[in-house]
Amino acid sequence: MTISRFIPPQRTLMGPGPSDVSPRVLQALAQPTIGHLDPLFVGMMDEVKALLQYAFQTENAFTIAVSAPGSAGMETCFVNLIEPGDTVIVCRNGVFGERMRENVERCGATAVMVDDEWGKPVDPAKVEAALKANPEASVVAFVHAETSTGALSDAKTLSALAREHDCLTIVDAVTSLGGVPLLVDEWQLDAVYSGSQKCLSCVPGLSPVTFSPRAVEKMQQRTGKVQSWFLDQSLVLGYWSGEGKRSYHHTAPVNSLYALHESLLMLKEEGLENAWQRHRDMHELLKAELEALGVNFLVEPDHRLPQLNAVAVPEGVDDAAVRAKLLNDYNLEIGAGLGALAGKAWRIGLMGYAAKRENVALCAKALKDVLG
Amino acid sequence: MTISRFIPPQRTLMGPGPSDVSPRVLQALAQPTIGHLDPLFVGMMDEVKALLQYAFQTENAFTIAVSAPGSAGMETCFVNLIEPGDTVIVCRNGVFGERMRENVERCGATAVMVDDEWGKPVDPAKVEAALKANPEASVVAFVHAETSTGALSDAKTLSALAREHDCLTIVDAVTSLGGVPLLVDEWQLDAVYSGSQKCLSCVPGLSPVTFSPRAVEKMQQRTGKVQSWFLDQSLVLGYWSGEGKRSYHHTAPVNSLYALHESLLMLKEEGLENAWQRHRDMHELLKAELEALGVNFLVEPDHRLPQLNAVAVPEGVDDAAVRAKLLNDYNLEIGAGLGALAGKAWRIGLMGYAAKRENVALCAKALKDVLG
Repeated sequence: MTISRFIPPQRTLMGPGPSDVSPRVLQALAQPTIGHLDPLFVGMMDEVKALLQYAFQTENAFTIAVSAPGSAGMETCFVNLIEPGDTVIVCRNGVFGERMRENVERCGATAVMVDDEWGKPVDPAKVEAALKANPEASVVAFVHAETSTGALSDAKTLSALAREHDCLTIVDAVTSLGGVPLLVDEWQLDAVYSGSQKCLSCVPGLSPVTFSPRAVEKMQQRTGKVQSWFLDQSLVLGYWSGEGKRSYHHTAPVNSLYALHESLLMLKEEGLENAWQRHRDMHELLKAELEALGVNFLVEPDHRLPQLNAVAVPEGVDDAAVRAKLLNDYNLEIGAGLGALAGKAWRIGLMGYAAKRENVALCAKALKDVLG
Repeated sequence: MTISRFIPPQRTLMGPGPSDVSPRVLQALAQPTIGHLDPLFVGMMDEVKALLQYAFQTENAFTIAVSAPGSAGMETCFVNLIEPGDTVIVCRNGVFGERMRENVERCGATAVMVDDEWGKPVDPAKVEAALKANPEASVVAFVHAETSTGALSDAKTLSALAREHDCLTIVDAVTSLGGVPLLVDEWQLDAVYSGSQKCLSCVPGLSPVTFSPRAVEKMQQRTGKVQSWFLDQSLVLGYWSGEGKRSYHHTAPVNSLYALHESLLMLKEEGLENAWQRHRDMHELLKAELEALGVNFLVEPDHRLPQLNAVAVPEGVDDAAVRAKLLNDYNLEIGAGLGALAGKAWRIGLMGYAAKRENVALCAKALKDVLG
């Protein structure tokens, strides 16, 4: 195998993530590496924390970026807050609810599943019934924005239900953070994780996480050690904490954190509300274009994620061939269906930096050309 | 808090890692992000695999980069190969042997510790005695190059002992890969993990890992699921495997993998043997300079890592003040002592791209100036 320098093409990324990354973020990424205990780097980490607090709309002191992708952020929440023998209500309306079940069971706990159809939001009535039927449950876990189906669930209502029954919440906000309202403090969410490569439009590889004081308390009252050394937040906090001297835990992904800092700064500059509005506006534009092409949404209007448009592959159309043509001829990536929707759906992302008029135009015209 | 763009200084990184990153690697890093299932990206991953096989000197089909730092690579080896109730011989001659014990115990297994003094290599006689005393042991775990002390252990001999007693080996090669000979196949090592930010001189955040067919077999014969979903290699392989269609597991850190590809390509271009020789040569130069300053090594000559020079902080010298002066006045980072060596040692790295004459000269002159 002769191997030479890899030079990727310039794609337009309108799948379920990674999304288009701004040149500003790529430039930040490529700055010279400095030490992970360098005082200047430690100062930058404090800024990342403050910027993440803004993005999550929280004052949680425990707000960091896990040094690994979103699925490690998910695992961080579960392994730190769940102990063997616990009961967890897990809402499943797509791929990521199922992954939550895997996490619960690998912690030696019991997952009580609350199922909703793929493409539908989580039904609060079912969650309430599960809470009543399982008074021993200590946590309710749900996906705010299901990346596999494009459905948005009502995190505020689900959180209120969990609180009424003395449960913490673990919330998957991988695709929601920065794209739709996510009010961690106002909604009293307890452990929330996200990903860098969706509506933050940073490079993939980091997972923003925030824990409420209640979640931190639960973590501190554990009877056993967290099963993962790498994700044990009682250790990680010694590195991220602003109090006194930082202690070494693992080597932080320095350059990726430069990029996250810059992407969060861009979000702050734009303003969260403006970013949410931009996602809605671009979604409306795309929706009109798709409807004109006879392409139908899978999710009811009230629960659609503006940043992730899941649509049915039209009757008689070859899913893979269309996506390959968009990629090869237009350098345009849209997402395939996942799990139960494989072959049946496309997932068209309008995330972060990718949520712009030129992308909507390209996607609409390219799809029109290819669908003929 | 007013936050503006973060612009790091240009440091010379001569600590225990991250090491200096070549402009070629930074340039590769900043290339446009493409999808993690893009056929071009999947092709690049095959190249990363082949380049890692070269770096590890192995034909192991299971050779990948874990999407997280070296400590996650360590955990990958333990959680996949250890089951509750197992007995593991763990060699401890520094910080990372202790971290291995943590990993073993969090897997519900028993760690039989073989202790050697910090700064000394692992003593094969003690390992043999432990193997004889614990015939139920299934794994021997040791650190090839102890980053906390600068000592090199004899991986070949330790591996042979483990085999004689039907044990697999888990080997920490975080600091050895690319810096000193590491012959995975010839020495018959079973599960070996490293880090991107040491002698590969890539940005931090990735952990190259290779499993022998024996290790893969042990993984496949597990009776229970791996406790970590994120690090479960039976799932990860569906993404990294070259056979047929890649299945989604997690979103790969696309840009960091561009950088790893480029840094491995640079190693291939130079040639492994030449890289090892360069590390030895630069070590000899630095050693002469340090000795002229009256700075003494902590490790006996036969077991010194050329890429990580652990030296005693001279009597009466203020450790932190010297390091701060080097950093602030010379933009030069050297490492502090870790664990038992905190305040007592400096760790001067000559890793990968940082192992060059200009760095030796800068370090020698700056230390001379600062020590007065």
